[in-house]
Amino acid sequence: MSYNTVKVNSPAPYFCLNKNNEQPEVSVITGRKWNVQTKIENDIKVLTSHNCESTTCLAYYSIGKTLIPTPIESLTDSMVVKGGFIKLDCPTNEQIQILEKKIKDDKKSMEPIIVMISDDLGSVIFEQLNLVSKVASKIELLVVDLSVCLEHSNVSPQSLNTIENLLQILQEALPENIIKNILVLNTNFGAHGSVLYLGNTGDSFNLQSNTSDILDPSSVATSVIANRSHGYEINESVYGAIEFVQNSYLLGLKSGQPNYMYNIELPLNHMLKDECFEAQKMRISKLVRSPNPIEEDFFEYLINHMLVKPHWQSYVNHDFVKLIADGTLDINKFRFFIEQDYSYLVDYGRVHCIAGSKAPKLENMEEELVIVGRIRDEMAQHEKRLKEYFGVTDNSFFKNIKRGPALNNYSRYFNDIAKRGTWEELVAALTPCMMGYGVAALKYKGKVTAKKGSLYEEWIDIYSCAGYEDGMKIGQGLLNHIARTAAPDQIERLVRIYGEVCALETKFWDAALAY
Amino acid sequence: MSYNTVKVNSPAPYFCLNKNNEQPEVSVITGRKWNVQTKIENDIKVLTSHNCESTTCLAYYSIGKTLIPTPIESLTDSMVVKGGFIKLDCPTNEQIQILEKKIKDDKKSMEPIIVMISDDLGSVIFEQLNLVSKVASKIELLVVDLSVCLEHSNVSPQSLNTIENLLQILQEALPENIIKNILVLNTNFGAHGSVLYLGNTGDSFNLQSNTSDILDPSSVATSVIANRSHGYEINESVYGAIEFVQNSYLLGLKSGQPNYMYNIELPLNHMLKDECFEAQKMRISKLVRSPNPIEEDFFEYLINHMLVKPHWQSYVNHDFVKLIADGTLDINKFRFFIEQDYSYLVDYGRVHCIAGSKAPKLENMEEELVIVGRIRDEMAQHEKRLKEYFGVTDNSFFKNIKRGPALNNYSRYFNDIAKRGTWEELVAALTPCMMGYGVAALKYKGKVTAKKGSLYEEWIDIYSCAGYEDGMKIGQGLLNHIARTAAPDQIERLVRIYGEVCALETKFWDAALAY
Repeated sequence: MSYNTVKVNSPAPYFCLNKNNEQPEVSVITGRKWNVQTKIENDIKVLTSHNCESTTCLAYYSIGKTLIPTPIESLTDSMVVKGGFIKLDCPTNEQIQILEKKIKDDKKSMEPIIVMISDDLGSVIFEQLNLVSKVASKIELLVVDLSVCLEHSNVSPQSLNTIENLLQILQEALPENIIKNILVLNTNFGAHGSVLYLGNTGDSFNLQSNTSDILDPSSVATSVIANRSHGYEINESVYGAIEFVQNSYLLGLKSGQPNYMYNIELPLNHMLKDECFEAQKMRISKLVRSPNPIEEDFFEYLINHMLVKPHWQSYVNHDFVKLIADGTLDINKFRFFIEQDYSYLVDYGRVHCIAGSKAPKLENMEEELVIVGRIRDEMAQHEKRLKEYFGVTDNSFFKNIKRGPALNNYSRYFNDIAKRGTWEELVAALTPCMMGYGVAALKYKGKVTAKKGSLYEEWIDIYSCAGYEDGMKIGQGLLNHIARTAAPDQIERLVRIYGEVCALETKFWDAALAY
Repeated sequence: MSYNTVKVNSPAPYFCLNKNNEQPEVSVITGRKWNVQTKIENDIKVLTSHNCESTTCLAYYSIGKTLIPTPIESLTDSMVVKGGFIKLDCPTNEQIQILEKKIKDDKKSMEPIIVMISDDLGSVIFEQLNLVSKVASKIELLVVDLSVCLEHSNVSPQSLNTIENLLQILQEALPENIIKNILVLNTNFGAHGSVLYLGNTGDSFNLQSNTSDILDPSSVATSVIANRSHGYEINESVYGAIEFVQNSYLLGLKSGQPNYMYNIELPLNHMLKDECFEAQKMRISKLVRSPNPIEEDFFEYLINHMLVKPHWQSYVNHDFVKLIADGTLDINKFRFFIEQDYSYLVDYGRVHCIAGSKAPKLENMEEELVIVGRIRDEMAQHEKRLKEYFGVTDNSFFKNIKRGPALNNYSRYFNDIAKRGTWEELVAALTPCMMGYGVAALKYKGKVTAKKGSLYEEWIDIYSCAGYEDGMKIGQGLLNHIARTAAPDQIERLVRIYGEVCALETKFWDAALAY
């Protein structure tokens, strides 16, 4: 019987680089009574998503409807603290006492850092902790829900209407020499958010969410200790935890569940792309790819696609260009645009460099470098404008342009496609700028009513001249090229990218008009 | 009381891009009796590392030393198959019957795909399955350990010494119309490895590991179903699973445990780098960075560092250069080197493009583009050599150079640093080539005994001429620049990269001599 031999390589260097990195170990100790397994499984997902090894200790098992306490000996066995990073999730007295003993006995291990989540801000938990000051002194952060603060403070919900009041309550609630830092989740001062109080530095932070999702305190606490275990400061770790959990809700699954794995890449994606792996040898001849859906001109296909058309239309028919063409655009708005555009072109150039680096052929790489040259020219024109018309004298000005949100969002999008995208995806992301400016300007060719020789007339000219049109033809050709070379299942992604970038272009001009 | 306000942004676009991607859900149904929780926790780690949502169903709970069977009703409740991707881990009869019923009842859900791991290749499991052909017909792959095959076949370990024999046994062991595909792990035909038999296409694969680690069948099965759930073919999924588990062992933790999270990036790393996040606002003034350890010239520091010195020495004192200098290098080895180097320069140019794209200043970006120009010149020289001395006539030759393993490993390393590395890391990776060739060639300046005007004399000249020395000075300056700008904790990483690249350079010349 015949067979194929496939060598399974050693890990790629980019994996090996991680070999020397210690992978932190986080222990989860939970005394919660309901759905303990579910809770633990959730913690393991979150810790894994943070590149942490996890060990767990459960006070109870809920089997069906029945609840079974873990026998003391196996409670002791399963409580591993060697990692030194511990999440205490509403622990039982027993667990705290075992932990106390472990910390005392285990001389070798590092001083543990503990994040505790509590259903009780007040007396009870602290009585527990006072019994075992050793544990208490290791608790770096207490995580609670706002409702808990209200429950265990003698203020009415109404009167707890400012952060100042909350911080007051926290100081009173936290006895001397015990837990100094506390994070209160799901507050609602102005915006929905969380409040971090750092007792030992006196700093306080109001972290405003842009959603009203109720963050799960347990997941936040787990993310905090995970970030801590990677060496981040407590304040950074808290920020990262809230951002992470919030993203998990915003990118949640159809089922409404948070998606804690949104940042994880399937290893196999990597292996199949890497020519040094022999994965390709596993291909079975029978497999055939479905044919490429694009027949007509891809550019036409794109701008008429339901995911693109609305964004493309609002982009190329933008008032910003109309106002330039008839010369009525407020000159300050134009200056703002030029400044933002200058800063944008730096990023645009960068991303073309990356596109070059990912180009399939050396020629494509050099094409990109030529474009980078053109971009430098455009930047020079902007410099000229700003110096001649807007009294810019110092060259340092260009390095210190204040970047607005529209520009930042656009850049961030570019940076990501640059980092993760294929060459085809980069081309899809880079083309809307080039095609759109041309299409928008061409509508006014010969119809410009702005003053002759004015900045505005010149600007329309640049993007409607024959030379620019030639460039557009190249761009269109490139789009058709990638449409033919891209894998069929990639086309939809290219379409989405093209549409998303058109939307970013529109917002870019919106920002100028709104300036 | 004063406090700082920090806006927690919406997810970055690179996260949002995932929003529309369905996240696959994989169900794990396990009937194993011992350490069930541990097994399940392991599966959750592996599935999370594959960006899969997981649901679990346990037949037993081991609490301390006591073993408690899950009551039938909660067994039924907890068995969710809506995802359609199921891992059956030595299931109990009860579980198989519940699953059978679920599949029958659940008309809406897709036809499930099942990967089963079995401690029993033969009779027992198949009797179970024959009862419930519905489940059996959905089992796409059976994963077993070689020892299982031996146990359930009447051949002796001695006589099972070829893959042919094994495949024979598999065909006999697999009854008609049941499971067609089978993966046997931890075989030992020549190299340690695994054998995949695809009954429905007749293909067989011998996947040779480069380690003798015993792969855990359970983790492999989980990785297979995870890859399947992302739409990969069964053969690709198996390759990915074996590669993944093998890497997990090779990159294992100090404790000897496999590291399933080696491919996961901490989300907070991203957030702190991204200027669109407000994480920086969380900084506390008190925090101070430790000073940079590098005082003297960083290049000197590097080549004398214990992680670099041995690699640097064997690189710059390589016989390859000596043989060129005294003109005794076999011309075919030289030709091979020139071809590989030509192909290398394409990658080298690419990575300089990426370095440009990551450069902190526009000037640095343009410097990189200048270098890319120089690289093109070097390539032109190689083209000239190959045409004048080695009878290359067709330009397509250059695109079709056969890449050797040394070149591929080097490129793969570059590609990764390019993808994940900072600008500083890229500079550290790109400099050894430039500095090393100079240092190696300079040793022979004026001492070349190769024929005047020969290829070899010319080659030494190129890398020892004044112009090249100037270039080296720039490179050295760049190294000192990054040593000053890099974060202290980054220096060690830069050192490691520099050493690793020196090792790759040595192997590159080794390959030429071994040609």
